[in-house]
Amino acid sequence: MTDNTSIQEIDNLLAKAQEAFFIFKNYTVKQRAAAMHKIADAIEALGDELITTANAETNLPVARLQGEKGRTISQWRGYADALASGIVLPVRIDSALPDRTPLPRPSIRKTYTPLGPVVVFCASNFPFAFSTAGGDTASAIAAGCPVIVKAHSAHPKTSGIMAGAITKAIADAGLPEGLFGHVYSNSFENGTYLVSHHTVKAVGFTGSYGGGKALIDLSNKREEPIPVFAEMGSVNPVFLLEKKLNNAAEEVAKQYAASLTLGVGQFCTNPGIFIAPDSPALATFINTLAEQIAATPAAAMLHKGIAKAYHTNKSSVLTQPNVEAVAQATEGAEGTGNAAIAMTTAEAFLANKQMAQEVFGPFGLLVTYKSADEAIAIAKAIEGQLTISILGEEDELAANSALINAVTVKCGRLLFNNFPTGVEVCYAMQHSGPYPACSDSRFTAVGPDAIKRFARPVSYQNWPDAVLPEELKNENTLGIWRTVNGELTKDNL
Amino acid sequence: MTDNTSIQEIDNLLAKAQEAFFIFKNYTVKQRAAAMHKIADAIEALGDELITTANAETNLPVARLQGEKGRTISQWRGYADALASGIVLPVRIDSALPDRTPLPRPSIRKTYTPLGPVVVFCASNFPFAFSTAGGDTASAIAAGCPVIVKAHSAHPKTSGIMAGAITKAIADAGLPEGLFGHVYSNSFENGTYLVSHHTVKAVGFTGSYGGGKALIDLSNKREEPIPVFAEMGSVNPVFLLEKKLNNAAEEVAKQYAASLTLGVGQFCTNPGIFIAPDSPALATFINTLAEQIAATPAAAMLHKGIAKAYHTNKSSVLTQPNVEAVAQATEGAEGTGNAAIAMTTAEAFLANKQMAQEVFGPFGLLVTYKSADEAIAIAKAIEGQLTISILGEEDELAANSALINAVTVKCGRLLFNNFPTGVEVCYAMQHSGPYPACSDSRFTAVGPDAIKRFARPVSYQNWPDAVLPEELKNENTLGIWRTVNGELTKDNL
Repeated sequence: MTDNTSIQEIDNLLAKAQEAFFIFKNYTVKQRAAAMHKIADAIEALGDELITTANAETNLPVARLQGEKGRTISQWRGYADALASGIVLPVRIDSALPDRTPLPRPSIRKTYTPLGPVVVFCASNFPFAFSTAGGDTASAIAAGCPVIVKAHSAHPKTSGIMAGAITKAIADAGLPEGLFGHVYSNSFENGTYLVSHHTVKAVGFTGSYGGGKALIDLSNKREEPIPVFAEMGSVNPVFLLEKKLNNAAEEVAKQYAASLTLGVGQFCTNPGIFIAPDSPALATFINTLAEQIAATPAAAMLHKGIAKAYHTNKSSVLTQPNVEAVAQATEGAEGTGNAAIAMTTAEAFLANKQMAQEVFGPFGLLVTYKSADEAIAIAKAIEGQLTISILGEEDELAANSALINAVTVKCGRLLFNNFPTGVEVCYAMQHSGPYPACSDSRFTAVGPDAIKRFARPVSYQNWPDAVLPEELKNENTLGIWRTVNGELTKDNL
Repeated sequence: MTDNTSIQEIDNLLAKAQEAFFIFKNYTVKQRAAAMHKIADAIEALGDELITTANAETNLPVARLQGEKGRTISQWRGYADALASGIVLPVRIDSALPDRTPLPRPSIRKTYTPLGPVVVFCASNFPFAFSTAGGDTASAIAAGCPVIVKAHSAHPKTSGIMAGAITKAIADAGLPEGLFGHVYSNSFENGTYLVSHHTVKAVGFTGSYGGGKALIDLSNKREEPIPVFAEMGSVNPVFLLEKKLNNAAEEVAKQYAASLTLGVGQFCTNPGIFIAPDSPALATFINTLAEQIAATPAAAMLHKGIAKAYHTNKSSVLTQPNVEAVAQATEGAEGTGNAAIAMTTAEAFLANKQMAQEVFGPFGLLVTYKSADEAIAIAKAIEGQLTISILGEEDELAANSALINAVTVKCGRLLFNNFPTGVEVCYAMQHSGPYPACSDSRFTAVGPDAIKRFARPVSYQNWPDAVLPEELKNENTLGIWRTVNGELTKDNL
């Protein structure tokens, strides 16, 4: 059932996707939204088999998986509703000005058209929300693109169940068959073939830097390079300010430990670097943090390869010069990850890029700074991140404006007295960041704006009303927001 | 005055740009818009010297240059006003839901932040509107990015005058000095240095495929690849339908000749390929077209290199097998271009990619088709284009829906009974297209949406109102459109 898909079968899926593209691209936003709700219904109807299979394949707890299933469904529904509102893919209409001098202005109207078939690579750490039926698939279909999913080799059966639900929903709703395809893979070959194929017009990926970079390089080698949206992880630095440390050392330590160890640290928003002032209250913070970490039981990671990499990468940081182990939970069986904290100085951190590398798992590196300038130097030295958090008292933000100015340049989401794990699915979410956190910081992987990755504007000049796409006609039958001659309105023309 | 800028001077400009970036990125959209109007005022105040210098450097007629100056000013003003409205860089606010179960939702608010210093390469064919003070510069500054312009070697003095006006406006208005820098170049060295420099975060380019591709490749070799928006030209196919040919052969021939020869054919939207039905009325069309072309005097092109390339590329198409010369205007002196028309069949065109290459200048290739299927085959075979035009009677559009479905996939702008030369600067304009017309079809080079190329969203989570960027505060002091909890509004929270 989950055998490697042959190239011949992939060619068949690509041909069907291309055929579906030429049909589905003419669906209105309302029709696409309706299709997405049908797919959401089908995922909702999946029973225990989905959860038990995913639990067996990923070691993720049942409660977490049930929550993730709910999130996945609400992504489909939320993106569908946002699409249907006209807010996400904004329509622009500029009326003809036949009497303008020296030249008349023709009628020009702009809407969005899908890029073409999209390949989605499943993530290991979100078997539902960022995999087969995840955010990339939902946003590509919202944009009007057929999707071919490459199942993740760590949860192929889960992927197969999800794919079955989507395929059935498509058939039941009378949607074009090639709107969704599903590929298993036991090597890099199928992924490489898909990304290099001329039919494919965009790629969605969530995973490691190495994996993402390989896909970007493949795209650049194509005769027609295509957008590869790769979300490639992050160490999500947290900056603690002095007053906050003095006022709430224990509370902050507990919150940090909870965020760092949540889900065995297997989130792209895991806060792997914690930058704290080297002041007397730090001892209290460290003691509490060490207690919390030591008391966190080792737990099974997503798969044995990830656990092995965790131990290797953790050891690599721990053996750097000027890095001191602070606390470590007891090691568990093979395939588990035990939480750990190490410590270094800003000076040592700035001198050694190795320390800023992501250790995927519940490992945190505490970096102490002696002055505001050192904290700013760290902010300037770090690479692009998904998130950066500032922990402080409100009245110390003004005094730290240089630090805040420096960190804004380096991340997609900036948090105040919050930890970055837990990514809300909402309009205002930006789940992206400057390279190497993401391949293109101008787009997001989460929230309805994620749809924009897979659509491009197209203008219709002097086009007769009767044959315009529905959203561009004089009568606003879809009831969407439109920018008409520079004003946002839902009115007819 | 227009000597090659040294690397040392470029380093100085880059350092100043970086400094300006950290200041200018905190300007509100209203403050940035005000800065842009100051720059527009300064361009408006430039006198005859600008026009006479540009005329001497580019051979473009005075009237055209005066019009282009007006367009350039209105780009600055129009983009400024669009920016200040909140329509172009949409703000999203999702309020905190402290009582939500199982987990409360924090306040999340998203606005845009500039990418960083941008390098703009001037175009040869628009010394004002797509050069020093052109659309790329205006949209980058609107986004909040400092700009370093690389002057075009064909009009360095014009570039210097424009740069002087911008620099003075920046000084007079008390804006950060490094907001604008200007570099002369007598080789590829300076451009390569700029695009490869870690301070630079995006590139704007208008020119040839070779030039654009070289910049894209440079970006991909960087440790941190950056967005290169390259508009690389197009042959802008025009498809004529049968009824229209039968009803208006002479009129269409005259319109086509006018569009093809406008400005000695030196527009990226020049309609270089004309696809017409092989029916009896075609003879009338060809006769009229031939008369018009023969009667068009040869005229000086932008510079001698462009004229030389025109003759070489024209000859290259004319010497392909199955290509027949139809009409040619009398040759002029060195440096001029004479209009010409050649003809081939769909079958020959489809068999020879050489015929679809851009010939920059007033040269058109007439491709005749014997059936709707042949026209569709051409639409499917051509590469990505800036524009595609359909000339037809309204009642023959329905019967040609397969052709229209095929061409939409290949262009950024689709015209009906219009010719593509003359690019309106308005919200609804899409001046872009699938690769190789542009490096990224999801963005536009013309219209206020061009600003989006140079900004990225950033979310603020749980951030105190007092220190939020102005556009995200509860009180909507800027009066901009915002998406608040899924609804577009100008209300305060």
